[in-house]
Amino acid sequence: MARAGTLYGVGVGPGDPELMTLKAARILAAAPVVAYFAKSGRTGNARTIVEGALGPAAEEMRLDYPFTTEIPVSDPRYLPEMATFYDDAAARVGARLEAGTDVAVLCEGDPLFYGSYMYLHDRLAGRYTCEVVPGITAMSGCWARAGRPMTRGDDVLCVLSGTMAEDRLAERLAGADAAVIMKAGLNLAKIRAALQRAGKLGRAVYVERGTTAQERLVPLAELADERGPYFSLVLVPTERRTV
Amino acid sequence: MARAGTLYGVGVGPGDPELMTLKAARILAAAPVVAYFAKSGRTGNARTIVEGALGPAAEEMRLDYPFTTEIPVSDPRYLPEMATFYDDAAARVGARLEAGTDVAVLCEGDPLFYGSYMYLHDRLAGRYTCEVVPGITAMSGCWARAGRPMTRGDDVLCVLSGTMAEDRLAERLAGADAAVIMKAGLNLAKIRAALQRAGKLGRAVYVERGTTAQERLVPLAELADERGPYFSLVLVPTERRTV
Ligand SMILES: C[S@@+](CC[C@H](N)C(=O)[O-])C[C@H]1O[C@@H](n2cnc3c(N)ncnc32)[C@H](O)[C@@H]1O
Ligand SMILES: C[S@@+](CC[C@H](N)C(=O)[O-])C[C@H]1O[C@@H](n2cnc3c(N)ncnc32)[C@H](O)[C@@H]1O
Repeated sequence: MARAGTLYGVGVGPGDPELMTLKAARILAAAPVVAYFAKSGRTGNARTIVEGALGPAAEEMRLDYPFTTEIPVSDPRYLPEMATFYDDAAARVGARLEAGTDVAVLCEGDPLFYGSYMYLHDRLAGRYTCEVVPGITAMSGCWARAGRPMTRGDDVLCVLSGTMAEDRLAERLAGADAAVIMKAGLNLAKIRAALQRAGKLGRAVYVERGTTAQERLVPLAELADERGPYFSLVLVPTERRTV
Repeated sequence: MARAGTLYGVGVGPGDPELMTLKAARILAAAPVVAYFAKSGRTGNARTIVEGALGPAAEEMRLDYPFTTEIPVSDPRYLPEMATFYDDAAARVGARLEAGTDVAVLCEGDPLFYGSYMYLHDRLAGRYTCEVVPGITAMSGCWARAGRPMTRGDDVLCVLSGTMAEDRLAERLAGADAAVIMKAGLNLAKIRAALQRAGKLGRAVYVERGTTAQERLVPLAELADERGPYFSLVLVPTERRTV
């Protein structure tokens, strides 16, 4: 029987292809099968980032989401349908591993930080050799572009989501020295209100598609938009300056 | 008059040289001057990581800390002496920029995330062209090695420091879905106690010198040591598994 393949969870960074690590570049150039999640009909963000980094003989395995925003998370169908989707995706990847072929799964940003790769990892890492290649997170890419020191000394950094309730957001923002709010674009009004209540709106920076050619970087208080794209976040850098 | 040089704050990742980005590798290979902070008499962690990545003609500028643990942060001399040290370091770097030479400052992990580079950035970024190259943070490097999904969905992640008071640590740990505790080694007893109070000791993983040849990775509850090195952290991954 063939020796099973290795599963690689490869972080490809936030957008700029040069923000891939040397290790990610090496693994992707050699990977016989490259798998990635994508919205039906779209190229997929992670796949766009690695254009030019894959080997000429790489076989691509698209894992098309059955739906993205059409069924809301609160719908009773959401969780069972997503679970079935990830089970099927893991079975497809697992079949190649079983046959002795390595599979590299592309992950936008870092694989183990709010990424879909984790749902394959949950299902496969116990059964196959698995190696995770960390990636530059969206937040690191965005704060580098903003050029704003985020945390110093023993500052507390909280990473929050724009999908949280306004009260909970405001409370967490008030208690943190620095914060990042993911999934910002579809939740701008709520995020503004929560930052205002926490007294931190003035420090907040909105970053859309950070590190890409389409990047937008605006102080949140000056942003007129009601909505932004999914690939956006809000940075709230520390106020401290000790030395 | 010569056009001023560019200041690069270059994240070099947590230890494994392959975790540098393509962009960091490109900038370091071409940099005429490479500056880095180091403990007197030591090579410096960031400098060790880039061994082999610098151009043959690169000039090295060591910025030796006047003290590290000899004077505690609480000592009244600490802040003014550190401020003077960073002023002098910025003056040395600034003199080269002024003369038209680019300077790359090495930063362990990510430059804007709890790093000394920020003290140069504070002093120089307003006066010179400055570009920050994000790096793989120590936490991303460590959780990749642990192979543990850290955050899912709208989990809240808190990044804390082992130097915080036990009560504050326990309170923050209780309120977060996932957490990272930096500066763990010298604060192990306090961290254990705080995690126990928050009911999360069983999930915590201790990682020392993650991604290097000296890496140690142990469930914190099984770690007998009273103290560990400075380059260590504790991961508390999310408990959630939704789909
Ligand atoms: C499912 S999470 C993926 C996070 C990713 N694994 C990471 O390590 O950062 C998607 C969220 O990441 C953020 N994001 C991803 N890429 C981004 C970019 N280039 N600019 C701004 N935000 C981005 C947005 O907040 C988006 O809603
Ligand atoms: C001054 S902070 C620097 C953080 C760095 N800029 C980053 O992006 O992660 C130093 C702390 O980072 C953590 N650290 C750095 N490198 C590490 C490694 N290889 N393994 C474990 N922890 C590390 C330790 O907690 C250490 O006390």
